Amino acid sequence: MAETLIKVDLNKSPYDNDGVHNRWHPDIPMAVKVKPGDDFILECHDWTGGQIKNDDSAEDVRDVDLSQVHFLTGPVGVEGAEPGDLLVVDILDIGTFDESQWGFNGFFSKQNGGGFLTDHFPEAQKSIWDFNGMFTRSRHIPGVEFAGLIHPGLIGCLPSKGMLDEWNAREKELYDTEPDRVPGLANLPYADTAHLGKMSKDKVPAAAAEAARTVPPREHGGNCDIKDLSRGSQVYFPVYVKEAGLSVGDLHFSQGDGEITFCGAIEMAGWIHLRVNLIKGGMQKYGIKNPIFKPSKMAPKYDDYLIFEGISVDEDGKQHYLDVHVAYRQACLNAIEYLTKFGYTRAQAYSLLGCAPVQGHISGVVDVPNACATLWLPTDIFEFDVKPNADGPVKHVKGGVDLPLAPDKK
Amino acid sequence: MAETLIKVDLNKSPYDNDGVHNRWHPDIPMAVKVKPGDDFILECHDWTGGQIKNDDSAEDVRDVDLSQVHFLTGPVGVEGAEPGDLLVVDILDIGTFDESQWGFNGFFSKQNGGGFLTDHFPEAQKSIWDFNGMFTRSRHIPGVEFAGLIHPGLIGCLPSKGMLDEWNAREKELYDTEPDRVPGLANLPYADTAHLGKMSKDKVPAAAAEAARTVPPREHGGNCDIKDLSRGSQVYFPVYVKEAGLSVGDLHFSQGDGEITFCGAIEMAGWIHLRVNLIKGGMQKYGIKNPIFKPSKMAPKYDDYLIFEGISVDEDGKQHYLDVHVAYRQACLNAIEYLTKFGYTRAQAYSLLGCAPVQGHISGVVDVPNACATLWLPTDIFEFDVKPNADGPVKHVKGGVDLPLAPDKK
Amino acid sequence: MAETLIKVDLNKSPYDNDGVHNRWHPDIPMAVKVKPGDDFILECHDWTGGQIKNDDSAEDVRDVDLSQVHFLTGPVGVEGAEPGDLLVVDILDIGTFDESQWGFNGFFSKQNGGGFLTDHFPEAQKSIWDFNGMFTRSRHIPGVEFAGLIHPGLIGCLPSKGMLDEWNAREKELYDTEPDRVPGLANLPYADTAHLGKMSKDKVPAAAAEAARTVPPREHGGNCDIKDLSRGSQVYFPVYVKEAGLSVGDLHFSQGDGEITFCGAIEMAGWIHLRVNLIKGGMQKYGIKNPIFKPSKMAPKYDDYLIFEGISVDEDGKQHYLDVHVAYRQACLNAIEYLTKFGYTRAQAYSLLGCAPVQGHISGVVDVPNACATLWLPTDIFEFDVKPNADGPVKHVKGGVDLPLAPDKK
Amino acid sequence: MAETLIKVDLNKSPYDNDGVHNRWHPDIPMAVKVKPGDDFILECHDWTGGQIKNDDSAEDVRDVDLSQVHFLTGPVGVEGAEPGDLLVVDILDIGTFDESQWGFNGFFSKQNGGGFLTDHFPEAQKSIWDFNGMFTRSRHIPGVEFAGLIHPGLIGCLPSKGMLDEWNAREKELYDTEPDRVPGLANLPYADTAHLGKMSKDKVPAAAAEAARTVPPREHGGNCDIKDLSRGSQVYFPVYVKEAGLSVGDLHFSQGDGEITFCGAIEMAGWIHLRVNLIKGGMQKYGIKNPIFKPSKMAPKYDDYLIFEGISVDEDGKQHYLDVHVAYRQACLNAIEYLTKFGYTRAQAYSLLGCAPVQGHISGVVDVPNACATLWLPTDIFEFDVKPNADGPVKHVKGGVDLPLAPDKK
Repeated sequence: MAETLIKVDLNKSPYDNDGVHNRWHPDIPMAVKVKPGDDFILECHDWTGGQIKNDDSAEDVRDVDLSQVHFLTGPVGVEGAEPGDLLVVDILDIGTFDESQWGFNGFFSKQNGGGFLTDHFPEAQKSIWDFNGMFTRSRHIPGVEFAGLIHPGLIGCLPSKGMLDEWNAREKELYDTEPDRVPGLANLPYADTAHLGKMSKDKVPAAAAEAARTVPPREHGGNCDIKDLSRGSQVYFPVYVKEAGLSVGDLHFSQGDGEITFCGAIEMAGWIHLRVNLIKGGMQKYGIKNPIFKPSKMAPKYDDYLIFEGISVDEDGKQHYLDVHVAYRQACLNAIEYLTKFGYTRAQAYSLLGCAPVQGHISGVVDVPNACATLWLPTDIFEFDVKPNADGPVKHVKGGVDLPLAPDKK
Repeated sequence: MAETLIKVDLNKSPYDNDGVHNRWHPDIPMAVKVKPGDDFILECHDWTGGQIKNDDSAEDVRDVDLSQVHFLTGPVGVEGAEPGDLLVVDILDIGTFDESQWGFNGFFSKQNGGGFLTDHFPEAQKSIWDFNGMFTRSRHIPGVEFAGLIHPGLIGCLPSKGMLDEWNAREKELYDTEPDRVPGLANLPYADTAHLGKMSKDKVPAAAAEAARTVPPREHGGNCDIKDLSRGSQVYFPVYVKEAGLSVGDLHFSQGDGEITFCGAIEMAGWIHLRVNLIKGGMQKYGIKNPIFKPSKMAPKYDDYLIFEGISVDEDGKQHYLDVHVAYRQACLNAIEYLTKFGYTRAQAYSLLGCAPVQGHISGVVDVPNACATLWLPTDIFEFDVKPNADGPVKHVKGGVDLPLAPDKK
Repeated sequence: MAETLIKVDLNKSPYDNDGVHNRWHPDIPMAVKVKPGDDFILECHDWTGGQIKNDDSAEDVRDVDLSQVHFLTGPVGVEGAEPGDLLVVDILDIGTFDESQWGFNGFFSKQNGGGFLTDHFPEAQKSIWDFNGMFTRSRHIPGVEFAGLIHPGLIGCLPSKGMLDEWNAREKELYDTEPDRVPGLANLPYADTAHLGKMSKDKVPAAAAEAARTVPPREHGGNCDIKDLSRGSQVYFPVYVKEAGLSVGDLHFSQGDGEITFCGAIEMAGWIHLRVNLIKGGMQKYGIKNPIFKPSKMAPKYDDYLIFEGISVDEDGKQHYLDVHVAYRQACLNAIEYLTKFGYTRAQAYSLLGCAPVQGHISGVVDVPNACATLWLPTDIFEFDVKPNADGPVKHVKGGVDLPLAPDKK
Repeated sequence: MAETLIKVDLNKSPYDNDGVHNRWHPDIPMAVKVKPGDDFILECHDWTGGQIKNDDSAEDVRDVDLSQVHFLTGPVGVEGAEPGDLLVVDILDIGTFDESQWGFNGFFSKQNGGGFLTDHFPEAQKSIWDFNGMFTRSRHIPGVEFAGLIHPGLIGCLPSKGMLDEWNAREKELYDTEPDRVPGLANLPYADTAHLGKMSKDKVPAAAAEAARTVPPREHGGNCDIKDLSRGSQVYFPVYVKEAGLSVGDLHFSQGDGEITFCGAIEMAGWIHLRVNLIKGGMQKYGIKNPIFKPSKMAPKYDDYLIFEGISVDEDGKQHYLDVHVAYRQACLNAIEYLTKFGYTRAQAYSLLGCAPVQGHISGVVDVPNACATLWLPTDIFEFDVKPNADGPVKHVKGGVDLPLAPDKK
C-alpha cells in the first residue's frame, strides 16, 4: 500500500494538525516532500473541519463558521518542480474512513452563506447520506440510491505572490461595489481563523492578513467543484512556486454540476491516493492558464436522463441578456417543480439536485437575448419510474419525512 | 416510407413556400394536419434560406440578412391538441438531401450579428463542411473528422397571444436599456421580412408587426440549439394553441454546447422524420413550463475528452460575480490557445469548438465570486494525438489553409 | 453525394444484375473499379434476393431456396491492391430504400436450413419488422421498439485459388463425416444456382462447380454476421487477389450476437457507403490472418441489461466439455423462458433474441468441464419493465398475436 | 461501516478457518446468519489459499495443489430463505487488503491444470500485478496500465442433495469417457483435501467423499468467472436449501472474457461487501434455472476497441462444426500474433488477454460450418498507440523482461 504521508484525526481540531491549512499563500511551508513518479495517500477533513454532525438538526448548518473553510491537506512539495511547469496528477483512488461512513448536504441560511437558490430556500436545512459501499442513500430523501462519483472539490498548487496579489485586488474591487451585501460578493482575507500549516508563528500575522480564502476556484484550480474530476482522472496543474505545493480537500462522495446547494455536494472526510509527475515548462508549451484534465475511465454510467431546459428569463418574468446563471436556475427550478409531482418536497428535490450526478450543460449562449441551459437528471437513481407518460405521475414518495430546518435566530 | 408532408425546393426562395414561416405568431394557419400517433417527414431549408453558399468566400456571411431567419417548416396541426397538453414528439430520424451534402459554419461580423467571441473575431469568417455518410470534414480545418450528432436547432409549438405579448414586452424592455448597442440586446419584431406561411394577406400586416422573431429560445422551446436534442430523442412540448402548431427548422449536422460561433453549428438543409402523441393536460400534471426531453440512445460516443476550465474573471482580469457566461468564454479561449500549439489558427480552433460535439458544463456556480465552467473537447475527432505529454506538442497542422475572411465594408 | 457504383432493382431478379454474385471465386471479374481514398455507394438485395415477402405467411421461409444465397454486390476492384495488403474499409453509412421500409426475421424448417434452436423450433416461422426512421417494431412481437444497429452481415475480399481449394477441402472433409445429416454439416459448391457476376459464359461451368458457398465466415471475413461491424466501423481486410475484389451484402437492420435465428437478423435490402484505402504489405506487418476492425463511435447505447447465464450441460442434463455452443444455447433458452413470464410466446422470444441488439459473451471457457456463456438482454427495448422484483412478473403482452408458422409439407 | 462477519488471516492456512470451505455440499453448516435487508462484509483468501507468491518464479504455479481450490468464504445463512426463492444479492463493493496490494496471473503446466491455450503454452508461467488505487500494472508486462473491473469469480448458494447427486453423476459420466486424459475432463470429488467449514468431524468423511469440487460453474452460479458480475451488480441466485447458504471467493482484480489463462484472472485476496434480499418463490415466478444479474453502473469505460475475429477452423486447418470454443481460440491467437508486432512476447500477450477487460463475443453461431467469435481488445490500456496504420507497427516494448517460466520436473 502506498504510504499515507499526512494523517488526520477526526476527533481533533484541524487547527492542531500542521499538515493542514485553510488559506492560499506562497509561503506556507511544504508539509511533506515527494519525487516525480511517487504515489502517496493524504487524509482529509471534511471541508468544514467537522462542524456538521450526523444528526437530524440543521442548527449546525445554520451556525457554521464559514471563515474557517476549507481545511486542506498539504502542501505537498514535489522535488524539481518550478514555476511554469505542469504538475501531472493521477487521482489513483479516493475512499472513506471506516469510522465515518456518511456525508452531509445542506443549504446555508441566506444570512450566512446562502446558495444558488437562496431566495427560494432562505433558511438552513440539511440532509444526511449514508454510504453503503459504492452507493449512498439518505434517510431524509426516500426513494433514491446511487453510486458515488467521488472526487475532490478542491485541489491545486500554491499561488505565487504576484498571483495572490492579483486575486486580492480583483476580488476586493468587486466586493467594494456592494460591501454591505448579504451574502457578500466575495470573501476577503480574514486573519482570525487562518491556519497556515507549518508556517512559523512570527510570519503568520502578515501572511494571514493577505492569504487568499479558499472559496472560489481560480487560475490554479482550487475550489472548482468539478464532479468529473473524479478518481481515475489525470489532471495537469500549473506550477507557480518552487516545489509546486499541491494541496487537496473538500472531498465529495457525489455532486451535481454546479454544486447548487453550496453546502455543498455530499461532503465527507476521507483519503485520496495521488501520483505526481512533471511536464517541465509545460505551461508555455501547451499554453495553459487554468488546469486541464482527462476524465476517469471509471465513473458511474447513468445513461438515461430526463433533461430540463431553462432560459434567461427570471422568476419574475424579467429578461436577462445571455445570462447562463439565470438560465440554469430556471432549469433547476423546473426540475424541482417536476419532482414535487412524485411526492418530494421542494427542499428534498433541491438537495437531490445538489447531490446526485446531474449534468448542467451550457446548451445555447448566442441566441440573443436568451441563454439556454439544461439540467440532466439521471432517471436510474430513482427506485420508481420518474419519466412522464400519458397516465400522469404517481406519488411514489409518501411524505412523513423531510429535510430538518433550522430557522434563523432572531 | 412515411409521407413527406411539406417539401422544400432549395432552388426556390423560401418566401414562395407557404409550408414555411419565419416568425412566431398564434394565427399562422396550420400548414398541414396530422393525428396523434402519426409519423411524417418535413423538409427544411437551412436557417438562412440559402443565403450562404458552398464556396471559399465569407462575403455571404458578412452580408447575411439576419432579419429573415429562421425559416421554419410548419406549423403542423395535431388533431385534438389543446392548450395545457404536452405534445410528445419522437424524432425518428434526420437526414440530408442527396444534392446538398455539405453545411456551413461561420462567425458573423460584429456589425451584423456578432457572436460569443465577437470581440476576438470581429470580422466575418466561414468554414465549409462536407458530409461523407455519417461523418464530416472541412477543407478549411484539416486534421479532424467526426460523426454528426444531427439535430434540429429550432423546434416548438406556436405561442398563445398572451405568451407572445409577454415575449414582446420583456424583450422590448431589455432592448430599450441600450437601444443603440451593436449587436442589439434583442431582436424586436420586424415586419418587412416576415413570412407568415398561409396567413391571408389581409391579416399579415398586423400580425407581422407583432410576430416574434425566432432567434431566442423561449418557454415553448424554439431556438434552443441543444445538441443533444438529436435524432432518437423524445421531447415533451407545451401546447398553447388549438392543434398545437409544431414547427421545426435550423437543422444542424453537428454542434458544440453553446453554439458559440452563432453562424452557427454545421448548418444544413435536410429533412426530419417525426412522430407525435399527446399527454392531455400534461403541463399541469407534470408541472411543465419549458420542454423536457429524453436524449437519444443513438449518438456518437466520444468518451475521451480533454477538459478545459474557465472561471469568471474576464480577459482584462476583471472579476465578475458567478457569471457562467464569462467563465465559459474563458474555458473556450483556453481551448483555442491550446489548439494553436498543434498548428491551428485561432479561427480554425474557434470554428471547431462551434462545430464538434464539445460539451460545456456548468461545473460550479456557488463558490463566490467565481463561477467555474468546463469545456469538454473530444480527443478522438482529431487524426493525431492532441493530449499533453512530457515531450510537448507536435505541430501536426502544417498551415497553408485557413477560414476565408471578409473584412467589413467601409 | 458519393456516386452509386452499383444499383439494384428490387423488382428484378438478382440473376439479371451482373454487379451481383452469390459465390466466392478468384476469377469473378471486378464489377467496378475504384482508387484508394475513394468513397462510393453500393446497393444490395436482401440476402435471399427477394424470396421473403412482407406478409403474414411463413411459407416463403419454409420454401426458401438456400442454394441461391447470399446475393452480394461487387466485386469492387481497388487500384493497386495486391495479395498481402490490408484493405482499409470505412463503413461511412448504411441505409434503407424508401420503397422498402421493412425487414424480416425467421426460423427455417429443420428440413431446410434449421438454426441454433431448430430442435425447439423445427418448423418455419417469420416476423416482419417495420422501420420508422432509426427505429423498428414488429406487428408480430408487441411491446418492443428499438434503434437499429445497422450493419452488413457479409463483407470481404475474393479468395485466392489456393485459399478456395483449402476451403473446399476442409469443408468436404467435415461434410463427408455425416453426409446424410439434415441440415448438412456444410454447404458444398452447387453449380446450378451459382451467379458469378460478369464472368464470361464459357468460364462459368468450371468455376461454378468449385466456387465456394457464401454461408460460413472464413479467413477473408465473409459472412461473419458481427453486429458491431456496423456503420461507422473501420475494417482491415486481407487481400488475396489483384485489386482485392471487395463484395458486400446481407444487410441487417439489427441483430443479436450469434444471429441465432439464422433467417437471420432483421434482413433487409438497402445501400452501403464505403471508403477504401490500402496498407501495403499489411498482412505481414501486423500478422493478420482474419480481418480486424474498430467499432463505430455511433451505435445505439443500450446500457441497462439483464444478463442470463448458461453452462455446457444440455437440455437433457448431459455434460459437455467446455462447449460454448451448448452454454450459449442454455443462456438463450433461459432468456426465452423468462420472457414467457411477461406474456410472450416462445417463438416471439426466440425471434426477439435474434433481432434485438443482445450481446453474447464467452464468459468462462476454462473451468472444466463447464463453459459459461452469458446473454445480455437490453431492457430499454421493452415498453414495460422487464426486470425482476419482489411482486413477480406482470403479463404486459396480452397475446392474440404470434409469429405465423408454416408446417412442413408432407 | 458494515460489520465484517467473516475475517481471514493471510498468514494462516485457510484450513484453520471454519468460516471457509472448498467444496459444495448441502450439509455444510452456515458459518454466519443474516436477515433479508442486511448488508455485511466477508473477507476472502485468494482462490489457492496463498499458494502463489509475489515473486519472480513460476515454480509455485507449476507445483500448485489444485485439489485444494477454491477457498470460499461462507456459507452465509439468510433467515427465511427456502428452496425455490431467489436470493437477491447487491454487490455493494469489493476491495483489497492494505497489506496485500498485488495479484497474480499464470498458465498452469499442461501436466497440472492446463488452460485454454495449453498446447501453445504447455509450461507454467506467471505474471505479478501491482495495484495502485483503482489501477494495476505488471513488472512482467510493460506498457500497460488499467483500472480494475473487480469481481468475484465464484459466488452462489449451496446445492440441494438432489442437485449434488446430479452434478456428480453427469460429470463422472463425462470423465469416464476418457479417464486417463491430462488434464482430466472433469474434477471428481476428492476427500483428502476437502474443507467443509464447521461440519462436525464425524460427518466429514461421508460428505467429503461426495462434495462437489468448485471448479466448474453450475446451475447455482458458482465459478462462473463472469467479469461483468462486478461490484455494483445486482444478482438473483436460485435457492436450493433452507437459509440459502451463500458463499463467495476467487476475487479478481480484473479479467478478460473467458478467463483464458485459467490461473486465472488477476487473482487476489480481499473483501466483499454484500446486501441480501429475497424474492419468495422467485424461481418459478420468473422461470429461473441459472442466476441472472444486472451489471453495475460503475465499471471502467474502455470504449475504443480493436476487434479480432476467429472462426472454427483450428490451428491445423481442420474444420469444426459451429464450435465457438475453437473460434474464440483462433481470435485469441490472432490477437497474440498481432501484439508480438509491438514487441510483446507471446506469453506476455497471452497473459494480457487473460487479465485485461477484453470482451469475447459469440458473434455468429449459425453459419454452417463456421462459428465466428470476436475478441475485443481495449486500446486505451496501452501506453502507446496499438492501432494499425499505413506506416506499420512500432516496437514500443523493448524486451528484456518476460514472464518467469518453470519447466516441468522430469
